[in-house]
Amino acid sequence: MISTYYEIIGNEEEIFLAAYHQQLPLMLKGPTGCGKSRFVEAMAQKLGRPLIQVSCHDETSAADLLGRYLLKGGETVWQDGSVTRAVRSGAILYLDEIAEAREDVIVILHSLSDHRRELYLDRTGESLKASPEFMLVISFNPGYQKSLKELKPSTRQRFIGLDFKIPAESIETKIVSRETGVNDKDAQRLVRFANKVRNLRDLGLTETVSTRLLVDAAKLIKGGVPPRMACQVGIISPLTDDQDTHLVLADYVALAF
Amino acid sequence: MISTYYEIIGNEEEIFLAAYHQQLPLMLKGPTGCGKSRFVEAMAQKLGRPLIQVSCHDETSAADLLGRYLLKGGETVWQDGSVTRAVRSGAILYLDEIAEAREDVIVILHSLSDHRRELYLDRTGESLKASPEFMLVISFNPGYQKSLKELKPSTRQRFIGLDFKIPAESIETKIVSRETGVNDKDAQRLVRFANKVRNLRDLGLTETVSTRLLVDAAKLIKGGVPPRMACQVGIISPLTDDQDTHLVLADYVALAF
Amino acid sequence: MISTYYEIIGNEEEIFLAAYHQQLPLMLKGPTGCGKSRFVEAMAQKLGRPLIQVSCHDETSAADLLGRYLLKGGETVWQDGSVTRAVRSGAILYLDEIAEAREDVIVILHSLSDHRRELYLDRTGESLKASPEFMLVISFNPGYQKSLKELKPSTRQRFIGLDFKIPAESIETKIVSRETGVNDKDAQRLVRFANKVRNLRDLGLTETVSTRLLVDAAKLIKGGVPPRMACQVGIISPLTDDQDTHLVLADYVALAF
Amino acid sequence: MISTYYEIIGNEEEIFLAAYHQQLPLMLKGPTGCGKSRFVEAMAQKLGRPLIQVSCHDETSAADLLGRYLLKGGETVWQDGSVTRAVRSGAILYLDEIAEAREDVIVILHSLSDHRRELYLDRTGESLKASPEFMLVISFNPGYQKSLKELKPSTRQRFIGLDFKIPAESIETKIVSRETGVNDKDAQRLVRFANKVRNLRDLGLTETVSTRLLVDAAKLIKGGVPPRMACQVGIISPLTDDQDTHLVLADYVALAF
Amino acid sequence: MISTYYEIIGNEEEIFLAAYHQQLPLMLKGPTGCGKSRFVEAMAQKLGRPLIQVSCHDETSAADLLGRYLLKGGETVWQDGSVTRAVRSGAILYLDEIAEAREDVIVILHSLSDHRRELYLDRTGESLKASPEFMLVISFNPGYQKSLKELKPSTRQRFIGLDFKIPAESIETKIVSRETGVNDKDAQRLVRFANKVRNLRDLGLTETVSTRLLVDAAKLIKGGVPPRMACQVGIISPLTDDQDTHLVLADYVALAF
Amino acid sequence: MISTYYEIIGNEEEIFLAAYHQQLPLMLKGPTGCGKSRFVEAMAQKLGRPLIQVSCHDETSAADLLGRYLLKGGETVWQDGSVTRAVRSGAILYLDEIAEAREDVIVILHSLSDHRRELYLDRTGESLKASPEFMLVISFNPGYQKSLKELKPSTRQRFIGLDFKIPAESIETKIVSRETGVNDKDAQRLVRFANKVRNLRDLGLTETVSTRLLVDAAKLIKGGVPPRMACQVGIISPLTDDQDTHLVLADYVALAF
Repeated sequence: MISTYYEIIGNEEEIFLAAYHQQLPLMLKGPTGCGKSRFVEAMAQKLGRPLIQVSCHDETSAADLLGRYLLKGGETVWQDGSVTRAVRSGAILYLDEIAEAREDVIVILHSLSDHRRELYLDRTGESLKASPEFMLVISFNPGYQKSLKELKPSTRQRFIGLDFKIPAESIETKIVSRETGVNDKDAQRLVRFANKVRNLRDLGLTETVSTRLLVDAAKLIKGGVPPRMACQVGIISPLTDDQDTHLVLADYVALAF
Repeated sequence: MISTYYEIIGNEEEIFLAAYHQQLPLMLKGPTGCGKSRFVEAMAQKLGRPLIQVSCHDETSAADLLGRYLLKGGETVWQDGSVTRAVRSGAILYLDEIAEAREDVIVILHSLSDHRRELYLDRTGESLKASPEFMLVISFNPGYQKSLKELKPSTRQRFIGLDFKIPAESIETKIVSRETGVNDKDAQRLVRFANKVRNLRDLGLTETVSTRLLVDAAKLIKGGVPPRMACQVGIISPLTDDQDTHLVLADYVALAF
Repeated sequence: MISTYYEIIGNEEEIFLAAYHQQLPLMLKGPTGCGKSRFVEAMAQKLGRPLIQVSCHDETSAADLLGRYLLKGGETVWQDGSVTRAVRSGAILYLDEIAEAREDVIVILHSLSDHRRELYLDRTGESLKASPEFMLVISFNPGYQKSLKELKPSTRQRFIGLDFKIPAESIETKIVSRETGVNDKDAQRLVRFANKVRNLRDLGLTETVSTRLLVDAAKLIKGGVPPRMACQVGIISPLTDDQDTHLVLADYVALAF
Repeated sequence: MISTYYEIIGNEEEIFLAAYHQQLPLMLKGPTGCGKSRFVEAMAQKLGRPLIQVSCHDETSAADLLGRYLLKGGETVWQDGSVTRAVRSGAILYLDEIAEAREDVIVILHSLSDHRRELYLDRTGESLKASPEFMLVISFNPGYQKSLKELKPSTRQRFIGLDFKIPAESIETKIVSRETGVNDKDAQRLVRFANKVRNLRDLGLTETVSTRLLVDAAKLIKGGVPPRMACQVGIISPLTDDQDTHLVLADYVALAF
Repeated sequence: MISTYYEIIGNEEEIFLAAYHQQLPLMLKGPTGCGKSRFVEAMAQKLGRPLIQVSCHDETSAADLLGRYLLKGGETVWQDGSVTRAVRSGAILYLDEIAEAREDVIVILHSLSDHRRELYLDRTGESLKASPEFMLVISFNPGYQKSLKELKPSTRQRFIGLDFKIPAESIETKIVSRETGVNDKDAQRLVRFANKVRNLRDLGLTETVSTRLLVDAAKLIKGGVPPRMACQVGIISPLTDDQDTHLVLADYVALAF
Repeated sequence: MISTYYEIIGNEEEIFLAAYHQQLPLMLKGPTGCGKSRFVEAMAQKLGRPLIQVSCHDETSAADLLGRYLLKGGETVWQDGSVTRAVRSGAILYLDEIAEAREDVIVILHSLSDHRRELYLDRTGESLKASPEFMLVISFNPGYQKSLKELKPSTRQRFIGLDFKIPAESIETKIVSRETGVNDKDAQRLVRFANKVRNLRDLGLTETVSTRLLVDAAKLIKGGVPPRMACQVGIISPLTDDQDTHLVLADYVALAF
């Protein structure tokens, strides 16, 4: 297993470890592409625990998480779902974009996230007690304005919360160059371009430039694509389909490179 | 089985016992995280009856509660659901957040909650008479303003009702210190901070600070996290995503610690 | 079988018997908790016919009523549903809250409720002729203002209709004391309190106090709960979640006891 | 088989026979309870053809009509649905309240109702040619104002149409007395009462008094119920839940009897 | 096989043959009952190719078109759907009222209707190349004002389009007399009556008189029904339920016959 | 395998190859019928990788993409879906019209489109690492004004973006003549006609003339259909059902030929 590269940007490691040791479930909040998934990967490696990730969406079913019966040789045999495997193995369970999931999926977590720390499999009649190593982590993006889905207070109040922000310029530059091998100068130009765009509030973008986009553009530059075209293809086009905004952003690219 | 810690805050024990002995179904009403589940656990232990809990949601199906046929060795065999097991074993059956359930799930309870005290399993053709030890308890949160779901009068009027409130300061302080091992002073500071926030009516919060959140913050303090950061992570971030409200609440935290 | 207690309040028995002998399907209309189910139970006992009850809701399926194929020993075997069993056994079939059912469930009753008195099982290809002892009874609550569901005229006009009202004071007092063993004085106080509340039109209640609620409060009193608390828990809290209405009703309780 | 009683009220028999011999599908239009089903029964008996009736609703599936595979002895065996049985046996197929059915059910009829007169079973790959004796009859109620469902022109224009009206007073009186055995005087009073109500346009009734309701009330009278109570229970209560309309109609009953 | 009668009304045959030889998919547009299906039948016979017809509706599933697995003798065996059979046999595939179908059904046609001419069966993993004899024809009714369903441009632009109109008087008269055996005079009266109605724009009809309706009325006349009654039953009643429009149209009938 | 004809119109090949070698997922944006699918086919051939195409729609299920269990000989055996086959075989995976797909289908791509390049099959418990040859390509049409579906930023920002436009006149003429064998003059007339229509902004067309339509019309001309009729049938009728627009466009055709 290759160790995941993750650059610490605040007190997130301290809180994660306290939550882990106090057996408190944790909720990560922050914009898309800011490194939440990588952070959880890095923490799991540090703690030496297996990591089980689930990307939530509105078709995720309780059976996907808990398990289901399959027919084998004329018998129905039980197959554990992701959450059940995590509880049995004392893993870090990471449910990404939890707010997209349906209520029935979220409610499954209730008995796991309070003093009971228990998972009840109604289909098998089994009740699983989580070991002290098990930890429940969820994430969602509070700034995503298009989404009308919100977590109910009776779910939110079961988690402690950690707010992620976009990293400071020097840290983000380090991330971009370290992840792609692009030279420091180009990495810094990309980050400065991104920060200028992030400060333009009236572009009407649903979400602004993520660190992930900068990494993509840097990879294209590293692969021989001219920087301006790399920014067009790796940052501007993924951000928006609006042709006028494309022109505005192309001007900022021309200033940066 | 370790006895559940529960601190009595009013006449709830007296009513529960009268309902149990008069074989009346009981409805618990109150905000999230105020201890309804713990109360039912403690009563079940006091009465020496098994407790079966179901967290309701809009995907809970009648089959989840009553049971279903499974294929085993080429035969279909019947497997009891939660409600059926509770009726067969004379348990306390606790249906949490009943208002989230679909009509078909709620209607199953009708014959159990009137003079018949009977459960009819249409799939097996079986009719189960509840023993005198069986008790039906439901809960819901009437103050949860986001929810448009309400129980129909024909369901509500089958239950007697018990209203839960947030406990008095001295009792809540005792709960926080007893559950987390935090010192009395910090427990009191947390409760006082909570009561100030609870009195701020114009914060626009869907729900206010629950006892559960205070317990989470106290656990972080006990685990070595500085109190102000523990309040941020354990109380403020779970309460809301609004950055302005975060700032207001951070000021109150600074006053408390 | 213990005989069901039912107190006659009008011409309901005469109509029921005429409908039974003329083989006319019957529709009971009236508020929740006024004794419709008990009445049907008592009539079935009087006529010496088995009673089959179904609580309708919008997830009741045609298969629940007609029957379904189950896998047993590698064969599909047919299992009768509630309506089929009632037709085969010449029972009184009682479909409670019929207006909640889906159209496909209601349409099943059409051939049973006209001159054909026949049930067609499309899955088995069987056609069952009802014996003269079979009777179809449905109920619904026309005053339930929240419900937008209504029976179609082509269904309604297949039934004769019996309107239930809240019983007169002396009859209701008799019901309360007879069912709970509470003394006549407390029974009368409960009924008078109920009638005062029933006359308050501007409380905004979806449904008003039913006889069932009075019986519940009386049982609590019989079980040793002080009358005012019994009214709070057994009548007021089940009626509404509105705190202002709670206060108004508590004043009426204080006047009554 | 007992012959169905049906009283001819216009040119309906002539049209039915012409449609049968010219192999044209027929659409019956008219209010609830005016005798459409009985008419089809009587015609089927006259022509000596079996009659297969289906009450349509929005849960009727294509499989209900065409057929489905069932598991028997480890094999899937095909079971014909109602329409398939009608085509194979050269029956009169009567689809009641066709406008309630879903599109997929109605579309099944397309190849049966044009020059092809063919039914295609996509699940078995079979194509059935209807024999000259097969006839397709559908019905719906165009005056039913609550229904927003309408047949598409591409379906309607495949049928010839026969409009049913409420029969003239003398014919309706004959129907009521002949079907119930009530004396002619009471039959006439019932019909006159009905015609008065039918002329009251501002009662706000979804549908007005059907012949079926008169027959029900007459049966109650025949069974010993006093005429006024029989009208209340057999006509007024099935018509509406509105208490004010009840009072108005009770006055008309008092004038009639 | 009896040859289908079809009367050419424009350049439709020339276009059909060019599309067939150039392997271009064809879209027929026009009102209900104007002969689109007959035209495709006649073309298939002329080209000597088998014809497979599917009437589309919003419950048509991808499995209906592509095929499904069935259980036979404990094995799952594959059964081709309509489209698959058409591709395998090099047939003319005619999908009637395509705009009624769901997106997933329409998308199946994409790879068949561009340069690939290929059908991919995801359930079996098979990829079928259409032979040069295979042709895809769809139809829909653009003037059907009730329908809110439209084909997406990315589907439409895969087809060449052929617009159908109501035939000229002399051709329509020939169709009516040839199909029914009615005398030329009555055929002409029917067509003239139809053309008068078609020119009345303010009748509020969803669709106007189709050739199919004239054929139905002519058959009734041929079967001995008096012409005016035949028009009432065969044309007016299928067109509309509005009683006022019935009266207007009856006047036009009286002028014609 | 015959090589796909594709005419390069900008820097699309350079970007595609850089994305392939940098293992970045690619998003193609552009109008219908502009050659996106052909481009991906040509690139796959150039790279010597197999191509797996999926046309997305709102009924595409996760099982279609990942795989499902089938019953064979009494055992459940696993069958790979399209995405799984693409990952196992290191193919170019092309998901056409991705914006039409449901969230659960799109979310499946998340772990494949970030640093993990992994596909998790929850039903088998298998985790597949994509080989360096695997590439993920999606397409959608941002200008399609009818569609209310948009990709979420958390999905978009996982892809680099390539914007397709309609090719310049000389290139489009070359495509039309090369693909159909029509003479250069007619090809040029078709392209010029198309460009005139594309510049007419107030025609109210959902989409304008695509290269695909020009190719269809050219094929009809090549097949002997007179040019004006070929334009009517191959371009105008597929574009719109509006008769007035038909007349306007017919005038432009008359000017062109």
